[in-house]
Amino acid sequence: MEAAYYKEKGKFISGESKELKPKKGEVRLDVAYCGVCGTDVHIYHGTMDKRVDMPQVIGHEASAVVAEIGEGVTHVKVGDKVAVRPLKFGEPHKFDKGFPHVGKNLKFIGIDAPGAFQKSWTVPAYTLHQLPEKLSLQHGAFIEPLSVACHDVKIGRVKKGENCLVIGGGPIGTLISYVLKEKDANVIISEVNEKRVNMLSELGFTVINPAKENLVERISELTEGGMIDCAFEVSGSAAGVEAMTEVVNVRGRIVMVAIHGGEKRKVDLFKFFWSEIELLGARLYEEEDYDEAIRIAASSNIPFDKLTTKISKLEDIQDVFEEIDTNPAGMKYLIKCQPEERLA
Amino acid sequence: MEAAYYKEKGKFISGESKELKPKKGEVRLDVAYCGVCGTDVHIYHGTMDKRVDMPQVIGHEASAVVAEIGEGVTHVKVGDKVAVRPLKFGEPHKFDKGFPHVGKNLKFIGIDAPGAFQKSWTVPAYTLHQLPEKLSLQHGAFIEPLSVACHDVKIGRVKKGENCLVIGGGPIGTLISYVLKEKDANVIISEVNEKRVNMLSELGFTVINPAKENLVERISELTEGGMIDCAFEVSGSAAGVEAMTEVVNVRGRIVMVAIHGGEKRKVDLFKFFWSEIELLGARLYEEEDYDEAIRIAASSNIPFDKLTTKISKLEDIQDVFEEIDTNPAGMKYLIKCQPEERLA
Repeated sequence: MEAAYYKEKGKFISGESKELKPKKGEVRLDVAYCGVCGTDVHIYHGTMDKRVDMPQVIGHEASAVVAEIGEGVTHVKVGDKVAVRPLKFGEPHKFDKGFPHVGKNLKFIGIDAPGAFQKSWTVPAYTLHQLPEKLSLQHGAFIEPLSVACHDVKIGRVKKGENCLVIGGGPIGTLISYVLKEKDANVIISEVNEKRVNMLSELGFTVINPAKENLVERISELTEGGMIDCAFEVSGSAAGVEAMTEVVNVRGRIVMVAIHGGEKRKVDLFKFFWSEIELLGARLYEEEDYDEAIRIAASSNIPFDKLTTKISKLEDIQDVFEEIDTNPAGMKYLIKCQPEERLA
Repeated sequence: MEAAYYKEKGKFISGESKELKPKKGEVRLDVAYCGVCGTDVHIYHGTMDKRVDMPQVIGHEASAVVAEIGEGVTHVKVGDKVAVRPLKFGEPHKFDKGFPHVGKNLKFIGIDAPGAFQKSWTVPAYTLHQLPEKLSLQHGAFIEPLSVACHDVKIGRVKKGENCLVIGGGPIGTLISYVLKEKDANVIISEVNEKRVNMLSELGFTVINPAKENLVERISELTEGGMIDCAFEVSGSAAGVEAMTEVVNVRGRIVMVAIHGGEKRKVDLFKFFWSEIELLGARLYEEEDYDEAIRIAASSNIPFDKLTTKISKLEDIQDVFEEIDTNPAGMKYLIKCQPEERLA
């Protein structure tokens, strides 16, 4: 298979990966690995069909090798290993306040434009970040979600020694936890799936299952009454929203990472007033977050292999998405977008 | 009448105002004026009986003259005009992070300790801020709520030229609007009471009545599509909470001023994620907010007299609270706590 096209709810089809010659300021890539994001699963479930021009190649957590460069491209050369920051910026909009990653003219590559579940992919050169020699292409596919985690921790203004709670120990919550460790923060994870609880515990994290223990009491014990300086709501659940205001201390911060689409959530606004707490929205990443993610991936000991549930061939993508739906304990699924021999 | 004691739901009784000799670090005041706060109205309605040791003198928006000073007090002298910051700090608590105004050992004078609706009042000296010569005792009673407004605007990090929306044009909302004008921000007020709409319009503010006009559309027109950089939710209503997320732009801030007790509110958390907006809780004030309020009160042209609905004698306090309940358009009610001739 050269490319996996999302055709309709629950269905990928095989198709051609066009080798689009890079125009001025563009680069053609040989995609190496591409991780499956929760957003890809939403697309697969048909809930984002209004945004996707079907049939369309999706996928955006990619590592790649530069195959061909367009005119004027100087910061990468053919053969370079890269991670892709899949944001296409239009004209800066006057109301964006200098934050194009949440701006009015942002196009997300892999949703609003063709993505990475294919062999050959042509993208703007400014989306590319060089991977250091010691980081493998396989681990390079973690740079996109790790950049999300770096951005979230930056928004939370986390300082050394602070008590942090990550609500939801899936792939993003786990990567946030590792970035918090990098900041020398004290990390607690709240997770209801027992398989994930066990896995995260084995990785050395302090994990509370709020379905089995009283979350607030356990956190009070663990922090000797100090409670949480910065909480990350990654669960997307009503229970997570309820917990987030209960656990933070005076002037505590809550970073809203999860996408609470659908109905509005009930929030304890009294607590915001009473303890002067903050709720801070966080979305995607900025250029500097990619730089930090690459630095952390290369220098820290994040066990990317243990966080990888399965690595599959592109032709097996349909099976992968079907398996994800039945495996709530799964972490990161990677798709190999080149023939085996080219990834050796 | 020497002192008005809150006896029980809906009832004040007359009583003695004891001239308590100031101990070390204390000051005895002749209270001049004391404004009626929304919190006093809540106490009068019986909803805070658990916190109030009835019968108790309440009231905390006071101006006063120093009558007697205790040992070691040097920053005020007998005869000085002062405003009172009614916060009694216990031992700094290790989990307060240096913010005692929202700390675990805070006692609010006028709720947790006897208040200012009386002739003679003994308080810690550190609660006193000198009033400049040009500020009258009558206007000095506005320093407490104006400090709330200064604190709210500080929490909102409002900069010159930013578009701000104040949701709820009562006394606090109006004072926030004046502080925003001091910061050279563009101010819009949302208010549903037509009498208040007219009054605020006559004071020169741009006011929208969301019961009569589409708030989001009007703000879009007024800001030429830019929408709101910082919104202040002062209404305490579900409609205000709904509006606050609709009006802010990318990276916009919302300051939670109102006390949303009772049931939790439904909040559009998706918008927090999507546009990276912030919700910032704000409560009371810090020392520097009083300094700023006094500076603004003395140097700006806030029409305190126009914001004063009525000035009444202490013996009429029962009538005042009964009138407040039937006058949703009212602004600030002041109580004279000394005989007429002493306030001349």
